[in-house]
Amino acid sequence: MPKKVHKLGLFGLGAFGRLIVRHLSPYFDIRAYDPSPEARAYAKRHNVELVSLEEAAANKIVILATPIRTLKALAEQIAPHVPLNALVIDVGSVKVNPAQWLTDALPKSVCVLCTHPLFGPQSARYGIHNMEIVVCPVRVRHLPPIVKFLEKTLDLKVSVTTPEVHDRALAAVQGLTHLIAKVLNGMGPLPTEHTTRSYDLLMQGVGLVSGDSDELFMSIERDNPFAAEIRKRFFHEIDSLRTRLENGHGAKA
Amino acid sequence: MPKKVHKLGLFGLGAFGRLIVRHLSPYFDIRAYDPSPEARAYAKRHNVELVSLEEAAANKIVILATPIRTLKALAEQIAPHVPLNALVIDVGSVKVNPAQWLTDALPKSVCVLCTHPLFGPQSARYGIHNMEIVVCPVRVRHLPPIVKFLEKTLDLKVSVTTPEVHDRALAAVQGLTHLIAKVLNGMGPLPTEHTTRSYDLLMQGVGLVSGDSDELFMSIERDNPFAAEIRKRFFHEIDSLRTRLENGHGAKA
Repeated sequence: MPKKVHKLGLFGLGAFGRLIVRHLSPYFDIRAYDPSPEARAYAKRHNVELVSLEEAAANKIVILATPIRTLKALAEQIAPHVPLNALVIDVGSVKVNPAQWLTDALPKSVCVLCTHPLFGPQSARYGIHNMEIVVCPVRVRHLPPIVKFLEKTLDLKVSVTTPEVHDRALAAVQGLTHLIAKVLNGMGPLPTEHTTRSYDLLMQGVGLVSGDSDELFMSIERDNPFAAEIRKRFFHEIDSLRTRLENGHGAKA
Repeated sequence: MPKKVHKLGLFGLGAFGRLIVRHLSPYFDIRAYDPSPEARAYAKRHNVELVSLEEAAANKIVILATPIRTLKALAEQIAPHVPLNALVIDVGSVKVNPAQWLTDALPKSVCVLCTHPLFGPQSARYGIHNMEIVVCPVRVRHLPPIVKFLEKTLDLKVSVTTPEVHDRALAAVQGLTHLIAKVLNGMGPLPTEHTTRSYDLLMQGVGLVSGDSDELFMSIERDNPFAAEIRKRFFHEIDSLRTRLENGHGAKA
């Protein structure tokens, strides 16, 4: 195990913050800020050092793993405490708005790396080997060592792109997955016997996001600038199909 | 390879009829009836003997693999030609109505076995090993040898149940899979990069039924007596979600 040369400030010990603790604690001394009682209990159980907001911000590497709606205010709060040349990283499911918020709020000397690990507590249950992380080097001076760490040390597949390309793709990828999961979960008990391979795959896919918070769902729908367009196309198709089925016109091409 | 002791009359050389030819021709002399030009071309290429409706019906084993909407009339047409003690099998995606049509139309001496192989040309692409077939012994004298053939010879997993239990489960299993596939396929190009595991599973599931005919989709929706109830629950959830997203009330429990 490599020796821990860096301290890392982590904001948020929710589901994703805990995944970060699990995978980064071999390499970093993690100092976490999260005032919730759940975080306190978790930190005690997992031997994670809880510190003040100012102390968590005063590190060369800072990861923000709090809900997206809190990011703008959090960036403004930590700005006076982040050291010169620090690297601030976010890990949320949308990138266009957070990229703007972080570059606006943090001093120019601070590097901003917006990332989206395309996995969560469920899909990374058995490890993160070869899973994808999208990396947007919004204001970064030396990207190669970061990519090397993600690829070689964490064994991730790194896709470097822009916040806009990310948000366009994920509006559909996450938007549709979560919309469909919400609908199927809302329907109540569904069959588990006499199922088809197609249905099994669908339900497995839905199962992976069913534990995600409603907060995450609403963030994707509200904070991704391309989500509304995907919803429009989705509901348009729903309406056409419904009209066709309700009119009972039967098969048409 | 066992010697072919039985002749088998097969009605329909569509996608599923062809799967039947592939898996049953080692064991049966298949005589098929399908007046379409595509069937003629297929039969020529695959060395399948095409015969008249009367000749296809005049076999100890008869499989009906035509669209569900044709089954009632077909059962009435073949009734005078099916031999005493013959076994007539259907393989469609709904069972309550076909079970009624077949028992009504065919002479009492003729056995009726309603089945639904829970796989199709896509999911059975690499074989049918351990795939499930639902078997409803609607009017059958000796079920064990049939189950033995399906299990031991074809290597299928056999579930014996009633048409009603089948239709209740499949209204959700197939109804939802096909509804969601129709919606996603109608949306036009969707991302293939920066995808999540959940999205990949969903799209794989949808991909397995995307090649199915619109005829099959409409059969499931129209001919399964429990499909309307599932649609109602599905669209009800869609409406709630849509209202919530359009009102923009944000996260709620």
